[in-house]
Amino acid sequence: MRNVAIVGAGMTPFAEHFGLGLKDLVPMAYAEAAAHVDKGIEKADIDAVWFGELTTSDGFPTGIVADTLDLTEIPVSRVENACATGNDAVRNGAIAIASGLYDVVLVLGADKVRETATNSTFWEWATLTRDNAWDYPLGLVAPANFALHVTRYLHESPATKEHMAMVAVKNHFHAVKNPKAQLRYEITVEQALTAPIVVDPFGLYDCTPQSDGAAAVILAAEDVVDRYTDRPVWVRGVGLGMDKVMHQHKDDMTSFPATVRAAKAAMSMAGIGPHDIDVAEVHDCFTGVELISYEDLGFAERHMAYKLIESGQTYVGGALPVNPSGGLKAKGHPPGATGVAQCYELFSQLRGEAVNQVDGARIGLAHNVGGPTAVAAVTILSADRG
Amino acid sequence: MRNVAIVGAGMTPFAEHFGLGLKDLVPMAYAEAAAHVDKGIEKADIDAVWFGELTTSDGFPTGIVADTLDLTEIPVSRVENACATGNDAVRNGAIAIASGLYDVVLVLGADKVRETATNSTFWEWATLTRDNAWDYPLGLVAPANFALHVTRYLHESPATKEHMAMVAVKNHFHAVKNPKAQLRYEITVEQALTAPIVVDPFGLYDCTPQSDGAAAVILAAEDVVDRYTDRPVWVRGVGLGMDKVMHQHKDDMTSFPATVRAAKAAMSMAGIGPHDIDVAEVHDCFTGVELISYEDLGFAERHMAYKLIESGQTYVGGALPVNPSGGLKAKGHPPGATGVAQCYELFSQLRGEAVNQVDGARIGLAHNVGGPTAVAAVTILSADRG
Repeated sequence: MRNVAIVGAGMTPFAEHFGLGLKDLVPMAYAEAAAHVDKGIEKADIDAVWFGELTTSDGFPTGIVADTLDLTEIPVSRVENACATGNDAVRNGAIAIASGLYDVVLVLGADKVRETATNSTFWEWATLTRDNAWDYPLGLVAPANFALHVTRYLHESPATKEHMAMVAVKNHFHAVKNPKAQLRYEITVEQALTAPIVVDPFGLYDCTPQSDGAAAVILAAEDVVDRYTDRPVWVRGVGLGMDKVMHQHKDDMTSFPATVRAAKAAMSMAGIGPHDIDVAEVHDCFTGVELISYEDLGFAERHMAYKLIESGQTYVGGALPVNPSGGLKAKGHPPGATGVAQCYELFSQLRGEAVNQVDGARIGLAHNVGGPTAVAAVTILSADRG
Repeated sequence: MRNVAIVGAGMTPFAEHFGLGLKDLVPMAYAEAAAHVDKGIEKADIDAVWFGELTTSDGFPTGIVADTLDLTEIPVSRVENACATGNDAVRNGAIAIASGLYDVVLVLGADKVRETATNSTFWEWATLTRDNAWDYPLGLVAPANFALHVTRYLHESPATKEHMAMVAVKNHFHAVKNPKAQLRYEITVEQALTAPIVVDPFGLYDCTPQSDGAAAVILAAEDVVDRYTDRPVWVRGVGLGMDKVMHQHKDDMTSFPATVRAAKAAMSMAGIGPHDIDVAEVHDCFTGVELISYEDLGFAERHMAYKLIESGQTYVGGALPVNPSGGLKAKGHPPGATGVAQCYELFSQLRGEAVNQVDGARIGLAHNVGGPTAVAAVTILSADRG
């Protein structure tokens, strides 16, 4: 396979953008990505676009993106894969360059979860991400679904609600410095533990907010990367993993096989292991999911994730900083944009330009898990070509 | 790029499958595709899946496909691109094999347009395929949108409503022999011309029916194709083209630049021209669109499409048979499946096994145009590796 690099990345602030549509947000993200290309880039340089969007807030996703960005002369495909949409869009874009068909691909991700084309509520939107014959009628929308997993995880592992609260405290702490984050304030463990319950064991601060936003990364083939920058960030591995959809078909509630499969594929492609990762953006839609993911990604032994957060190792300054951007928890979570924005954060980290810079970071991992934990995507980026 | 071939293809009948969901239809299409692989194929041979679905009738598209087919150990991505979804899914699958990352890719397409997860009416579904700020509030859902184009086309070209009726008569005639077609009966020009008006200039017989169905093609890299068949059908070219979304931004209502761009990309990749095509499956969602597409695909000179249908050249037995399957018009049109089913038809044609066989066919073209004519996809298949 031809090597692929990110040569530019951008994102809008994640926020309640009630006044902005996709036609506003997508060009903002693209403009920042293009501005980050050291030697400049023209739209005429772009050969194709992959667009990750879970919902269809403005209607006809690919047409509106092509039209809004004045890119109607090149192909635009839409990728959708529940909350793993963003990193799967990056995967599709990287594959397209690797094929040799295109040299420069723009990967976009965007969503507005509460203003969609076909409906007007978040809960109707949730129908897109689970089995309508079983999970949805049972009320197993995202918080309820993940609560089943995390309840069992708290039962089987030594982790407690205090450890979940520590994840929230960490990610809010990181978000304070991030101008793109939605929830830029610190919280305490006590605040997290005494917050109103959304669905047991999740209090308000265990849950990601609902967010609007867009993100963009510009990918280039190794053959042409020098035209754009001398400081590319290489896409070393991409992985997508699936799992059975319904809980009653899962052998084990405390691990997500989709994440294990995606990580295995991406790490195998990159020729690295979990211990090579210097910085990670992990899917913390609910705090307990960050803990479970430490284990599924190989950062901690089974049921031992609590030690990583308890010891502060996943703060910036620790051995393996996780979610220096603030994560989904505090940066926000517009599903199509989330994975692409994780790659934006890692692009900044691996070039030494992040707001919460991880000293000496050379290899980063981005991770999404979505649907009823039945899909996950992992992207591994590196400052080195490998 | 590595060469890619189709080694198996299948489809369900297109029909009103009110009693069947995607969990039924997708396995039916896959089973036929696998049965068509001469030397056999196991699920363990499949490295990845690309799934084209416009709506989300059963919810969570990729998860349900992975789970239903027991393919949870490999990646499943969803592609959505309005009515060009099917051929864009084929394009994404072919690119993935060309990249070298996968050797065998299953491409699926399916839709149920009147039973979707988020809504219950065809017109709400239409919001997914047009600009909700402009086209949809103006009532420019598919029939109205295409009617604007075809009205102008009838004004500028010598074509008449009789020529449109001839397209309907031809495609119904072809569908009679096709056991997978939805409307298996002949009609006359007079019946078409006197049918109730849907939206002028389209009568009932100018319009595709609303359909449910699924289709599948199994793609393999040239390196491994011999394991599966000695009669592969090669994917010689894939093209995706876009255009401006709104009518008021289009320079010319009587040509679809998206089709021109998609055809140019696919033919350039295949190293062929329009005159090399022996058989074509063309997007005849409305009869007038087949006429316009003859010109955009290069089969006829500008405004001269009427001559092709008037002379019978696009019947099986003519110089360039178009829609031997019955086309969208009479075979049916479940959008995600439509383009994949076109490739199924061409797979049969190029192996000499079609129900309406085109004698000596070596090169076939499949074409979709979707959204408000702002996206098109073209696939070129050949019995020869090229």
